[in-house]
Amino acid sequence: MSEAFDAVDVIVTKRDGGRLSDAQIDWVVDAYTRGVVAEEQMSALTMAIVLRGMDRAEIARWTSAMIATGERLDFSSLSRPTVDKHSTGGVGDKTTLPLTPVVASFGAAVPQLSGRGLGHTGGTLDKLESIPGWRASLSTEEMTAQLERVGAVVCAAGPGLVPADRRLYALRDVTGTVESVPLIASSIMSKKIAEGTASLVLDVKVGSGAFMRDLAAARELARTMVALGTDAGVRTVALLTDMSTPLGLTVGNALEVREAVEVLAGGGPPDVVALVCALAREMLDAAGLPDADPAAALADGTAMDVWTAMVRAQGGDPEACLPVAAETEEIIAETDGAVVLLDARAVGVAAWRLGAGRARKEDRVRATAGVELLVRPGDRVRAGQPVLRLHTDTPACFARAREALADALVVAHQGPATLPPLVIDRIAV
Amino acid sequence: MSEAFDAVDVIVTKRDGGRLSDAQIDWVVDAYTRGVVAEEQMSALTMAIVLRGMDRAEIARWTSAMIATGERLDFSSLSRPTVDKHSTGGVGDKTTLPLTPVVASFGAAVPQLSGRGLGHTGGTLDKLESIPGWRASLSTEEMTAQLERVGAVVCAAGPGLVPADRRLYALRDVTGTVESVPLIASSIMSKKIAEGTASLVLDVKVGSGAFMRDLAAARELARTMVALGTDAGVRTVALLTDMSTPLGLTVGNALEVREAVEVLAGGGPPDVVALVCALAREMLDAAGLPDADPAAALADGTAMDVWTAMVRAQGGDPEACLPVAAETEEIIAETDGAVVLLDARAVGVAAWRLGAGRARKEDRVRATAGVELLVRPGDRVRAGQPVLRLHTDTPACFARAREALADALVVAHQGPATLPPLVIDRIAV
Repeated sequence: MSEAFDAVDVIVTKRDGGRLSDAQIDWVVDAYTRGVVAEEQMSALTMAIVLRGMDRAEIARWTSAMIATGERLDFSSLSRPTVDKHSTGGVGDKTTLPLTPVVASFGAAVPQLSGRGLGHTGGTLDKLESIPGWRASLSTEEMTAQLERVGAVVCAAGPGLVPADRRLYALRDVTGTVESVPLIASSIMSKKIAEGTASLVLDVKVGSGAFMRDLAAARELARTMVALGTDAGVRTVALLTDMSTPLGLTVGNALEVREAVEVLAGGGPPDVVALVCALAREMLDAAGLPDADPAAALADGTAMDVWTAMVRAQGGDPEACLPVAAETEEIIAETDGAVVLLDARAVGVAAWRLGAGRARKEDRVRATAGVELLVRPGDRVRAGQPVLRLHTDTPACFARAREALADALVVAHQGPATLPPLVIDRIAV
Repeated sequence: MSEAFDAVDVIVTKRDGGRLSDAQIDWVVDAYTRGVVAEEQMSALTMAIVLRGMDRAEIARWTSAMIATGERLDFSSLSRPTVDKHSTGGVGDKTTLPLTPVVASFGAAVPQLSGRGLGHTGGTLDKLESIPGWRASLSTEEMTAQLERVGAVVCAAGPGLVPADRRLYALRDVTGTVESVPLIASSIMSKKIAEGTASLVLDVKVGSGAFMRDLAAARELARTMVALGTDAGVRTVALLTDMSTPLGLTVGNALEVREAVEVLAGGGPPDVVALVCALAREMLDAAGLPDADPAAALADGTAMDVWTAMVRAQGGDPEACLPVAAETEEIIAETDGAVVLLDARAVGVAAWRLGAGRARKEDRVRATAGVELLVRPGDRVRAGQPVLRLHTDTPACFARAREALADALVVAHQGPATLPPLVIDRIAV
């Protein structure tokens, strides 16, 4: 079959700072998925995109070209309005676990296609797999039925959804081309648009524990994704939220599920509750349910009922004991004072080294591994007081986890006058 | 085996505009040659180098890392001084053919490791293979013996010489990363330094028919290569020469050999003779033979004697008839006037389309195909007068060759007041 373009011409266009035409984008994404454009050609193109950028129209076309490589889901037959959330990833971010049942408890359908963790950020599927029996893979029919009946689904995306992204993400991961607003935005939004949700709330994290450490870049990513969703007919809004400190008091798979269940039981750390409620309000608003009160659903047990039904529907036992690490060790404060900083990235890396994360896609994660925060920024500590508790099944990991945490905790004579806000900004069209 | 670096860290360093350390460069070049750094990783790195550049020290280290992946030749046992020439490639550039025997005729050894053509520029080995029986592959022993006895060798580089460059060049060719001064300079100079020549004269072409169309970029490439050679202990000088018009009156393999033999017989086009003499004077000077007169060696037949010996030593028959194309067609001037421009790139592309060049490395070239120039810039023409003659064995190619030549010839009422100089500048340390 004769090809419409030559890969080198497409690469050179972007390398030299030009605009890719619609036809070039459609061809290169499709030809890459077909194996006609080689891995080394796509990696040269993505590096050129990282360094030269793409304009709004190029990003929109790239996104639709990615969607066109696979199937699209269609939930329009459901009696419930669909609304989804996506987080760009952080440390201790277990928000999806209480949020999905909260929103579903008011009658919305939340088709939460989630991923696994890579590097220092955790993945929602890894967390839920701490629950004995729970399975991440559902057929489209199972997913649709569960959405209609329970309203809440958290599961893995099937292989037919945006296959170009699956290959491209794996390629970017090994070629230093992850950090690019056009490529991140199109990767996320292609999957969310193909998934067929009517509304979408984005949680764009910013800070040391996030992919975007810089507020301006996070804002640009949020704006780009809101524009992409809106142009594709998905009601989209983004919250920019702080990820300089881990969310909540736990980082690690089973540890985070336990904390999520505390939130569903009406308790849990205030920052997790606040973020769940802020995101739930946006989602319920987008779903046409502006009067619903998320805090009430957490207080009266209706969200917990949906959680129980959701876990059961996917084979999990919500009553089962979660696994516990064989060993723990504590990190001790060295001086008296106030906690000024507890660095999210350092805690994320420590949890990863204890076994909670993976370095390669094929690695297994340990459900029990992780880090408990015994203090948070703003708290006063005394020398000798435990500040972090490390959990692992393989005590040989403690030393490297401690190394990662060497500068994680900053204690000063005076605490910060005010803590940064959790929700920094709201981006809508 | 545990690796000293992670490929992604090396890529990200350059992507973000940083300097690669000596250890990073040594590792990445070696690990790529060993297959530990994947093709898609090296292509991302080379694209980052194209867009971010490398400083002088990085280029020097990259060059020595490339050399270290293979063997080095050593001609220090020869009784003759060694001196080599390298051209960055142009249209109708048959200079190597008369130049090598001219320089050798004064007692120097010229170990001319040459390449094949790709795209619109011809390759010296392709040209010599028009001679019945001539072979490009010599063992190191055959090469050394011929250098001692005849003084002149033009042959293919063996597979052991800079294997990293062989892989890297093939990769750059398909990933849009050819156009980069650091990568071009290190590719050329790694082979020339590994080849073990004591002196080197570079012919850096600039103009439409060259890889460098821009004088500033050509000058930067020349300076970079002169510095690399000098730092490696090779006496190196570069001439910047014009490649806006094809060199001589022929473009194509057998056609160019015929013209080279005319030059060796004391005739030939003035521009070819002038460039051969200019390069020969530089080479002879570098070889410690400043009083040698290249024009005399062309006039008195001594260069022709070396040519005959050189062709015979590599199995060729210097008396044999060169192959002639089955078909020719002429291009006719449309108006009266003076030739202002005869575009080198257009003529190169036309010759390529007639069968003289290859689109892929595995393609065969046709010895007989090419273009004859019947006029040159500065000549007056009359409407209806033939200006170019196309040669091919496959007349179906004429139409596409004519397309390439549509704007190649510019005829004006007044000719140019002065023609551009052939040798534009001389770059030495």
